Amino acid sequence: MSFPQQVRIVEVGPRDGLQNEPGPIIPTETKVELINRLANAGVSHIEAASFVSPKWVPQMGDAAAVMAGIDRRSGVTYSALTPNLKGLEGAIAANTPEVAVFAAASEAFSQKNINCSIAESLERFVPVMEQAQAAGIRVRGYVSTVLGCPYAGDIAPAQVAAVSRALMDMGCYEVSLGDTIGKGTPLKAKQMLEAVAKEVPMDRIAAHFHDTYGQALANLYAVLEEGVSVIDSSTAGLGGCPYAKGASGNVATEDVLYLLEGLGIKTGINLQAVVDTGHWITRELGRHNGSKVAQALGECNQ
Amino acid sequence: MSFPQQVRIVEVGPRDGLQNEPGPIIPTETKVELINRLANAGVSHIEAASFVSPKWVPQMGDAAAVMAGIDRRSGVTYSALTPNLKGLEGAIAANTPEVAVFAAASEAFSQKNINCSIAESLERFVPVMEQAQAAGIRVRGYVSTVLGCPYAGDIAPAQVAAVSRALMDMGCYEVSLGDTIGKGTPLKAKQMLEAVAKEVPMDRIAAHFHDTYGQALANLYAVLEEGVSVIDSSTAGLGGCPYAKGASGNVATEDVLYLLEGLGIKTGINLQAVVDTGHWITRELGRHNGSKVAQALGECNQ
Repeated sequence: MSFPQQVRIVEVGPRDGLQNEPGPIIPTETKVELINRLANAGVSHIEAASFVSPKWVPQMGDAAAVMAGIDRRSGVTYSALTPNLKGLEGAIAANTPEVAVFAAASEAFSQKNINCSIAESLERFVPVMEQAQAAGIRVRGYVSTVLGCPYAGDIAPAQVAAVSRALMDMGCYEVSLGDTIGKGTPLKAKQMLEAVAKEVPMDRIAAHFHDTYGQALANLYAVLEEGVSVIDSSTAGLGGCPYAKGASGNVATEDVLYLLEGLGIKTGINLQAVVDTGHWITRELGRHNGSKVAQALGECNQ
Repeated sequence: MSFPQQVRIVEVGPRDGLQNEPGPIIPTETKVELINRLANAGVSHIEAASFVSPKWVPQMGDAAAVMAGIDRRSGVTYSALTPNLKGLEGAIAANTPEVAVFAAASEAFSQKNINCSIAESLERFVPVMEQAQAAGIRVRGYVSTVLGCPYAGDIAPAQVAAVSRALMDMGCYEVSLGDTIGKGTPLKAKQMLEAVAKEVPMDRIAAHFHDTYGQALANLYAVLEEGVSVIDSSTAGLGGCPYAKGASGNVATEDVLYLLEGLGIKTGINLQAVVDTGHWITRELGRHNGSKVAQALGECNQ
């Protein structure tokens, strides 16, 4: 057991969160203000947009305008999802300093979600990686369904490790391990992490856990015990779970920060400023605030 | 690290949960049906009522009628809170096989909540304990504010240990450690538990954690690692937090059961039957279901 002294939070609310919000298209200026508020709160890594066809994801159709509108605060990394070469070109044109690609740990999920095998999806990223590297842009890799698949059930830890290793070998600087359906529990999270850590250095592994079954903080605590020091989370728990109607998706940043503060782990982020941001964006969206810490602490400094 | 092989769930929804529900008085038959459904789901320990003045807690005014109405299923312990001798007499008259007394770990909380010092509150329980023992009734001890007090802030683990020891010395067979305001985080929970375990055998310690800050399952995982094998929880997360309006109180039984199943720990309880019970009672009360597992799994067998 060796807790990290410091954890880097990767805030995914503006992309992974808003992308999964139901309802009308969110105005560009609202997205820009959310990102700026989070940066002002001390968040050093924000997934800001997705350069994907607006036919697939209408909510992200203004990616270039978002990247053009945000303040570029020094010390903050603003990243974007780029599922293909066209997306990467858009990200480069919008002066995006970091992009992300993704693959599933489950064959069934890969087929159903992006209509190709895991191997084919990795193959498609080869030119994206090459062009990103040529442009001096860092690439983060996401692995989905690491603790269960809605179609195939349990996923072997070795399979997660193999896909993680493949993404690192292709040139990703970090892999983010996504419990897409939130079905994981702490021992399973630990076992999966141990398998990945045989292939990828621990300081290059991020935990991206969903709270669909309420287990996210327990799972994070378990992998923090193993030394994970990068956590993906979403302010106010923005984003739902496409596989269970009305259920939670991303773990709330506020709740993660509260856990970390209690463990004496530094993040550089002002919790109350994130709480205020979460209350602000949920009012804007007319949505329930999914953070229990936000509900308990209430609002101030508005 | 030594997880227990088996955990006993003490279901507190019918008492600690319903007592803190806002709204009109819940009909006796609804309470009775809730208790019977939980017993049928395999819950072996149910806190069913509180023999307290209805002037203080109107929601519990029908304690005798509840105890008279429920099925007495073999192998199930039905218990009641008895704050004083009059309460104990009511519980004995209602043929209650187990009762519970309570003390705070915080002097400030004791003074504000029951208007006397911790020592005075323990003194008051001496005749209750004597009479319960004479009647062959087991007594459970609750300690509140073990991980923080709404008035005094942090509570020293040694103070929790001293109050726990006092309750055991008076004749309680078990102490339940309550994080009344849900402010605890895993390391603090562990440190508090370690202090108590110096005074009370581990198999006589129960964890009663609230989820107000979303930390309950992480805290439970941390104390399970230390060997705690009794957990208090409330179906559908019944009961709010009197110290933070609109916030969560008791951790949901469904979410605890899901955690335990994932850890391979047996409880003898059918998770889906508890999920169905939680959906039923929340419909009866016109209340949001506070269990994320219940939200994710939905309903069946209704």
